[in-house]
Amino acid sequence: MCSSKDARVAIVMGSDSDLPTLKGCIKLLQEFNIKVDVMVCSAHRTPEKASDFAKKAEENGIDVIIAAAGKAAHLPGVLAAYTTLPVIGVPIKSSTLDGMDALLSIVQMPSGIPVATVAIDGAENAAILAVQILSVGYPGLREEMKSFKKKLALKVEEKNQALQSKLVDGKWDI
Amino acid sequence: MCSSKDARVAIVMGSDSDLPTLKGCIKLLQEFNIKVDVMVCSAHRTPEKASDFAKKAEENGIDVIIAAAGKAAHLPGVLAAYTTLPVIGVPIKSSTLDGMDALLSIVQMPSGIPVATVAIDGAENAAILAVQILSVGYPGLREEMKSFKKKLALKVEEKNQALQSKLVDGKWDI
Amino acid sequence: MCSSKDARVAIVMGSDSDLPTLKGCIKLLQEFNIKVDVMVCSAHRTPEKASDFAKKAEENGIDVIIAAAGKAAHLPGVLAAYTTLPVIGVPIKSSTLDGMDALLSIVQMPSGIPVATVAIDGAENAAILAVQILSVGYPGLREEMKSFKKKLALKVEEKNQALQSKLVDGKWDI
Amino acid sequence: MCSSKDARVAIVMGSDSDLPTLKGCIKLLQEFNIKVDVMVCSAHRTPEKASDFAKKAEENGIDVIIAAAGKAAHLPGVLAAYTTLPVIGVPIKSSTLDGMDALLSIVQMPSGIPVATVAIDGAENAAILAVQILSVGYPGLREEMKSFKKKLALKVEEKNQALQSKLVDGKWDI
Amino acid sequence: MCSSKDARVAIVMGSDSDLPTLKGCIKLLQEFNIKVDVMVCSAHRTPEKASDFAKKAEENGIDVIIAAAGKAAHLPGVLAAYTTLPVIGVPIKSSTLDGMDALLSIVQMPSGIPVATVAIDGAENAAILAVQILSVGYPGLREEMKSFKKKLALKVEEKNQALQSKLVDGKWDI
Amino acid sequence: MCSSKDARVAIVMGSDSDLPTLKGCIKLLQEFNIKVDVMVCSAHRTPEKASDFAKKAEENGIDVIIAAAGKAAHLPGVLAAYTTLPVIGVPIKSSTLDGMDALLSIVQMPSGIPVATVAIDGAENAAILAVQILSVGYPGLREEMKSFKKKLALKVEEKNQALQSKLVDGKWDI
Amino acid sequence: MCSSKDARVAIVMGSDSDLPTLKGCIKLLQEFNIKVDVMVCSAHRTPEKASDFAKKAEENGIDVIIAAAGKAAHLPGVLAAYTTLPVIGVPIKSSTLDGMDALLSIVQMPSGIPVATVAIDGAENAAILAVQILSVGYPGLREEMKSFKKKLALKVEEKNQALQSKLVDGKWDI
Amino acid sequence: MCSSKDARVAIVMGSDSDLPTLKGCIKLLQEFNIKVDVMVCSAHRTPEKASDFAKKAEENGIDVIIAAAGKAAHLPGVLAAYTTLPVIGVPIKSSTLDGMDALLSIVQMPSGIPVATVAIDGAENAAILAVQILSVGYPGLREEMKSFKKKLALKVEEKNQALQSKLVDGKWDI
Repeated sequence: MCSSKDARVAIVMGSDSDLPTLKGCIKLLQEFNIKVDVMVCSAHRTPEKASDFAKKAEENGIDVIIAAAGKAAHLPGVLAAYTTLPVIGVPIKSSTLDGMDALLSIVQMPSGIPVATVAIDGAENAAILAVQILSVGYPGLREEMKSFKKKLALKVEEKNQALQSKLVDGKWDI
Repeated sequence: MCSSKDARVAIVMGSDSDLPTLKGCIKLLQEFNIKVDVMVCSAHRTPEKASDFAKKAEENGIDVIIAAAGKAAHLPGVLAAYTTLPVIGVPIKSSTLDGMDALLSIVQMPSGIPVATVAIDGAENAAILAVQILSVGYPGLREEMKSFKKKLALKVEEKNQALQSKLVDGKWDI
Repeated sequence: MCSSKDARVAIVMGSDSDLPTLKGCIKLLQEFNIKVDVMVCSAHRTPEKASDFAKKAEENGIDVIIAAAGKAAHLPGVLAAYTTLPVIGVPIKSSTLDGMDALLSIVQMPSGIPVATVAIDGAENAAILAVQILSVGYPGLREEMKSFKKKLALKVEEKNQALQSKLVDGKWDI
Repeated sequence: MCSSKDARVAIVMGSDSDLPTLKGCIKLLQEFNIKVDVMVCSAHRTPEKASDFAKKAEENGIDVIIAAAGKAAHLPGVLAAYTTLPVIGVPIKSSTLDGMDALLSIVQMPSGIPVATVAIDGAENAAILAVQILSVGYPGLREEMKSFKKKLALKVEEKNQALQSKLVDGKWDI
Repeated sequence: MCSSKDARVAIVMGSDSDLPTLKGCIKLLQEFNIKVDVMVCSAHRTPEKASDFAKKAEENGIDVIIAAAGKAAHLPGVLAAYTTLPVIGVPIKSSTLDGMDALLSIVQMPSGIPVATVAIDGAENAAILAVQILSVGYPGLREEMKSFKKKLALKVEEKNQALQSKLVDGKWDI
Repeated sequence: MCSSKDARVAIVMGSDSDLPTLKGCIKLLQEFNIKVDVMVCSAHRTPEKASDFAKKAEENGIDVIIAAAGKAAHLPGVLAAYTTLPVIGVPIKSSTLDGMDALLSIVQMPSGIPVATVAIDGAENAAILAVQILSVGYPGLREEMKSFKKKLALKVEEKNQALQSKLVDGKWDI
Repeated sequence: MCSSKDARVAIVMGSDSDLPTLKGCIKLLQEFNIKVDVMVCSAHRTPEKASDFAKKAEENGIDVIIAAAGKAAHLPGVLAAYTTLPVIGVPIKSSTLDGMDALLSIVQMPSGIPVATVAIDGAENAAILAVQILSVGYPGLREEMKSFKKKLALKVEEKNQALQSKLVDGKWDI
Repeated sequence: MCSSKDARVAIVMGSDSDLPTLKGCIKLLQEFNIKVDVMVCSAHRTPEKASDFAKKAEENGIDVIIAAAGKAAHLPGVLAAYTTLPVIGVPIKSSTLDGMDALLSIVQMPSGIPVATVAIDGAENAAILAVQILSVGYPGLREEMKSFKKKLALKVEEKNQALQSKLVDGKWDI
């Protein structure tokens, strides 16, 4: 449990319509050279597959589970019920209620079974959180994350510089 | 499947703290001479018991399931995933958000697996809905329900009469 | 009351603008060979027609009523007031508030008169719930529902298989 | 239709538990010497009584209807469906959701059948609005309402004067 | 105050961007041969014009005021503060919050100064409510309103008939 | 406009029931030796007094206005309409909706007339904001505010120290 | 601190995607001949730059800070923590929740550190509020603001006049 | 980084009034023999202490940070900005809005800086999540967590057994 090449994250989505939202999450984890399993699996339509997956996740080498779902989003909580691995929940915005239903269905877990919830449609943050969690056991990832955050800061600063160039003769040319 | 003595409803609650809210529901079903199973069973803390219960509910003679839970209330949806029996969900108000979290977690079920949702803390209505559903197979119950509704109407009218007595000399003495 | 050919569901909508949302519901019930009445009827603009319909629904052979409405969606509750048949309510999303007004107007029914509420725009789930309710009296439908749910699970698994094919040389090609 | 002694308002409440909220409304109308009918009548438990009342309200001399209800508050809308009299709706706060369910169930009426909605638990304002509406036909009431509003303003000013007396040596002694 | 030709309604909007929402309202009132004043007037940008208008509305022959505004929609309440005429408030949906801000800013008026609130963007209902209010003093309008409501009911029934024609050989062709 | 002794803030409340919430605000301004006018004045019940006050506030030496109101809280916006002084709005929580109605009625001001809104019941923060605004013209106040913020930080640190003393033998004795 | 040429406002945005929303704010401040600094700076991705900016803002001649951010919008509060200058917060609407998340994250500041919050996407109002605040120290700006508000009123009246021209032969031609 | 005796969690609260909510969290972590730092530290009143703490947390041996705050709860996000350690956020319910403000302020973090959010007042779940995260690096904790979850399940089952004893002669004695 020392080389970060062994770090492994499973991404489970309740419907393949969630895939576009999750693309950035998958790519970001792969940039960190983390092994990524991706799966469509519904807490309601394929409940036994969901519970089987969660029960065996640890012995299959999974370190962290990311689960994304919309509406009455039970998937993250259902997986968390069957494993002691950390489960990150991503509320997906669907056609009504702007994702508030998914957010509350994921974050308001009762005492005993937490889900680490990120923002509505916040799949990239789920990846970053997964890397931060993995860093507890794979210290090399922490250094990579520090570089990543520096790049984020740099991008903000570059955008700021681009903005400053629009100040012409003391007036903003926007 | 003809005598209503055989009608059977299972009431499942996520926590025994939900029992006070469910008392009226249990008593009302018993007034209709319906067999009632009551069980504490958590979708998250005892998930296998929940799924086992739901999978065997039909063969155990259950006709309708009532499931009550608060917060991220997954219990009704999780049971519905494992059975084709009608599942009635009762959102329970807990210490924050006035039950809105439970309501959305129960009612906003994704396509394929419905939960028949009643009002927040609406446990008595869950009992009445169960009787109405049972009436499809146990016609005797429908007649009893008609009597029940007449009594409800009578009570409203009695309260109205009591109110009218407060009109004294054309002025309301309230 | 034994052959499922006799099962009959009435679908009532407050406005014909709700029809597109209800198409899937109608088709799904017909796939189960259930007789389907469909009607435009407003709780507010044609209240007497609504109450007449509900009062006679049972003697007209209706087993379950599905009522869909938006905004201050009174239709399901108004029908439920005049019948002891189970009434399923479908909150319709309209131009503001994302269907939250319809959801609360339908689900928050006072004690005595329940409406079995499904998700906002959840018309297909209303059909599935109707079949589950009918199964209490028409046992043949339950077996068909089990097949239906297996097909749902199969579709999820097919989508999952399609997704797995995008894992090329250990990287996700998405 | 000239003497304001003939002005008549009916107050209908969905449950007698709403009476305490409505007391101020009843008293205020009586202060304006308006005849007041008060009735407990449920849109759901006594629907025929509700529709009968509304259908006959005009011929019974009612000018304006005030209807108060909580939760899925259908009563004002149901009455409005059966009459062309102006209907004022008072959303009642109940044990959950702070009255938001009643507010939306009353105010979000579909096109064709309006309900004049006042604030949650705003029963006194319903009385004032009724007087303002009656003034269209009973001009004497308008003058009384002007006096009433002057008294309201006076009370605010008296409270302000009481407050000013707490300014002692340029410091507020509160 | 007997001929309905004398009935007069003022429609005040906070911004001319509200005009499209109010068109139906204006037309509907004109169908009832009611005199209609229309005005752009902001509670915040032209407050004195707003208060002047409201103070003189009665002596200018206005019977009912309809005021429409979005966001922190103070206009209806501000007008109501300066007149004893009935004020109908129309919350306008703007670019955020789906009109909930306007609804609460209009309906939650403090004790003493009511605004008769209709649905978000419910301008046509404001017109109907105005006619119902005017009917208290102009009885001829009530008969016209009864005809109007009959036409509404007829339209619903026509749509229902159109729908029934889609039932071909016992199957819905939709 | 140099000595901070001349700085003057008017606090206007819609109802004297708001006074307990505003006490801390008044005291805090007095600690900064700022002259404080306090007034009960309703945007709806005493609208002319409100507009008169706002119109004359500048010439009466007021620098900043703090206005507090609950429900459909129009007071801050109405005052802002009649003055170019900065107006700070304090939404007051009342018996329903937890102050959300007041917050939206105050903060969602339309373009042209801003209100500087603070938290629900955030009257002390209104005082601090007033001091920060006054500091633009009364520089002495800025130094006092820096001391004030240092004291705030010190209090947090003292509470932290008190907490640390509960760590006994490496275990928290709480 | 007398000439308004010296007045200086800093506008900080959490992301350059907020720039379109802020354009009107920048232009409006420049119309008042106020010096405007504009900066992209994230409370989370460049936290040290944010705190450095806020700590030095006063000595760099900034009088007022306007900070705009979306989602969990911490930027205004974080800046306010490091300065005693008045901080105006602009909640930005993003892809979900209609800006409600940003509004609550900005306005609900805990006791001690206020943020002067304007409407969601209310960037122009932030500029106007900044001018009103600056007027405390730069009296010339107050007169300019009075002219500005007169122009606003004039525009409303022009729109009203344009509307009145649509009244043809006593009917609205709209 | 092998013995779980070295695992260390820092709990930071924005105010000492949050301590009662956090007690269960502290005790639960100590039951797992995890070293626990507890600190009162405000993102707004002591911002430099907060950033210093977060910057040095890793070198001080902290593995996971739990941050709790109410209202505009910036503390978890501010700490996350300065560290790459996983940060768990606990939204605290305060006097208004039922904790919804804190929830949105914590969970809706912008891209780049996630906070692992648990339920409102869900401090015990924060502890459990921390243990699950620590288990990535301290495998012994995972086994202890499995025992813990078994005990949770056992408690549910015991409560269920207690409930079953109330079934007397086929009737529920409740």
